[in-house]
Amino acid sequence: MLFLQGGATQLFTTIPMNFANGPVDYLVSGEWSQKAAKAAQATGAKVNIVANTEASNFDHSTAEKDWKLTNDAAYLHVCPNETVHGHRLPAWPKHPNLVVDASSEFMARPHPVKDAALVYAGAQKNLGPAGVVVAIVRKDWYARIPKSVPGLWNFQKQAEAKSMINTPPTFGIYILLETFRWLEKQGGLAAIEKVNEQKAAAIYSAIDNSNGYYKGTVTVPEQRSRMNITFKLPNEEITDVMIKDAAKQGLVALKGYRTVGGIRASTYNAMPLEGAKALASFMTDFAKKNG
Amino acid sequence: MLFLQGGATQLFTTIPMNFANGPVDYLVSGEWSQKAAKAAQATGAKVNIVANTEASNFDHSTAEKDWKLTNDAAYLHVCPNETVHGHRLPAWPKHPNLVVDASSEFMARPHPVKDAALVYAGAQKNLGPAGVVVAIVRKDWYARIPKSVPGLWNFQKQAEAKSMINTPPTFGIYILLETFRWLEKQGGLAAIEKVNEQKAAAIYSAIDNSNGYYKGTVTVPEQRSRMNITFKLPNEEITDVMIKDAAKQGLVALKGYRTVGGIRASTYNAMPLEGAKALASFMTDFAKKNG
Repeated sequence: MLFLQGGATQLFTTIPMNFANGPVDYLVSGEWSQKAAKAAQATGAKVNIVANTEASNFDHSTAEKDWKLTNDAAYLHVCPNETVHGHRLPAWPKHPNLVVDASSEFMARPHPVKDAALVYAGAQKNLGPAGVVVAIVRKDWYARIPKSVPGLWNFQKQAEAKSMINTPPTFGIYILLETFRWLEKQGGLAAIEKVNEQKAAAIYSAIDNSNGYYKGTVTVPEQRSRMNITFKLPNEEITDVMIKDAAKQGLVALKGYRTVGGIRASTYNAMPLEGAKALASFMTDFAKKNG
Repeated sequence: MLFLQGGATQLFTTIPMNFANGPVDYLVSGEWSQKAAKAAQATGAKVNIVANTEASNFDHSTAEKDWKLTNDAAYLHVCPNETVHGHRLPAWPKHPNLVVDASSEFMARPHPVKDAALVYAGAQKNLGPAGVVVAIVRKDWYARIPKSVPGLWNFQKQAEAKSMINTPPTFGIYILLETFRWLEKQGGLAAIEKVNEQKAAAIYSAIDNSNGYYKGTVTVPEQRSRMNITFKLPNEEITDVMIKDAAKQGLVALKGYRTVGGIRASTYNAMPLEGAKALASFMTDFAKKNG
């Protein structure tokens, strides 16, 4: 496991720099996978978009059977949880050279890491402070790296230097260690997934039992994210009222991303079950009062 | 002022990527300026070394009158304090397009920032935790940036985005703010320089008054660093004894860099005057006992 400086955004560029030894496939399912695809294009890589749901404002991810894959692509890049739009791939797809931007779901459920050629994740969701990005690379991939890639951005050289080509973001990495220890105490990934499922279920249940007062923004139910729960109220005015009322009860950071609007409740590992339940209960009361 | 992710090492590559619109001059005076020059070469920039003191293991920096400058170089790059070798340029040189890696002396004395086209500094010496690098760029330089430079590494785009093209290393930047507040309380840069001069003077005086027991590694006295004080004892065995004895008195992190050996006492802003005096006093006693 590599601990690199910066965030996942930097890897949007360095991954194709290192590993795009031929045309590459990108699934564009939201804000972040789209940025990744554009960054890859900017490096000069030949990027094929296997599917793109931008036309419906990324309200779901295209079903795997409808992807237009390239034969022998250097890799397939997916972002299995889209934080802005609130949906996820229930499972990672199968591909001989799979690249996964797992930033917003990493360590929130067990992952089939062995099925991927490269998994990466910015720390600032479930792992620690911004400024560190974790990467796991299948070793046979090192042979692809062009000599022109500067050492700091060269995954093999970083691996050989144990992520210390330069002084790494030491404090952030230390916090990751403490977070991993905390995760172990919780019972590990299977246990934390169970809690995350309960948190999401509580809030989705408040949405689904609101007689249509709340509307989830994701149109494919089985794709509903367990990390970012996005929904709308009848109008913007009442959304603002809800955000203010919620804040009075200590329920904060609920404003949806500007391109989606509405509400986004993020339920990363650090959010306890009680927090999700408190929000669900508040939502039910609020809908009764204003519905 | 830009707050960028990573460290100065990343800028060794991104500075020439952005600004080497012609041949560039590098002063190679130690480990770090040499790394910067090599990284620039690796980007394809035409690098001219104006002087290089590697042959004498970087025991000084070449006098300005002996530099072989290129006419109309895109810039001149210098590292005015060499942490590994313990010397500094008493003043930044004059050049119409000066680039300064100020990492190990930034905010330790007043700097003529207006005389430089670009000043950069990794945080982990005088500013805060590793994982943030500060950069100050003269705005007319933005016109040099090739369109091919990815957004994250493009100084103009980062400036326009207020250093937030992606999530920046927030915790580190916050610590910088607290450090700047602390610096103001100390009386600012002129005041901290005075303390730093006193700290260095105490230790250099212990060296110079040891009847030759300690030997400073820097051969040009006016280049002696105020941040990193490097010296040797009669032999390696006694050096190890000194390091162990010093540790017993709470004087730690004194081992010299592996390419230089001996002792390196770093006296960054965070080291109080009492710490430097305690080391000086210990050194005097140790020399008496073992000399």
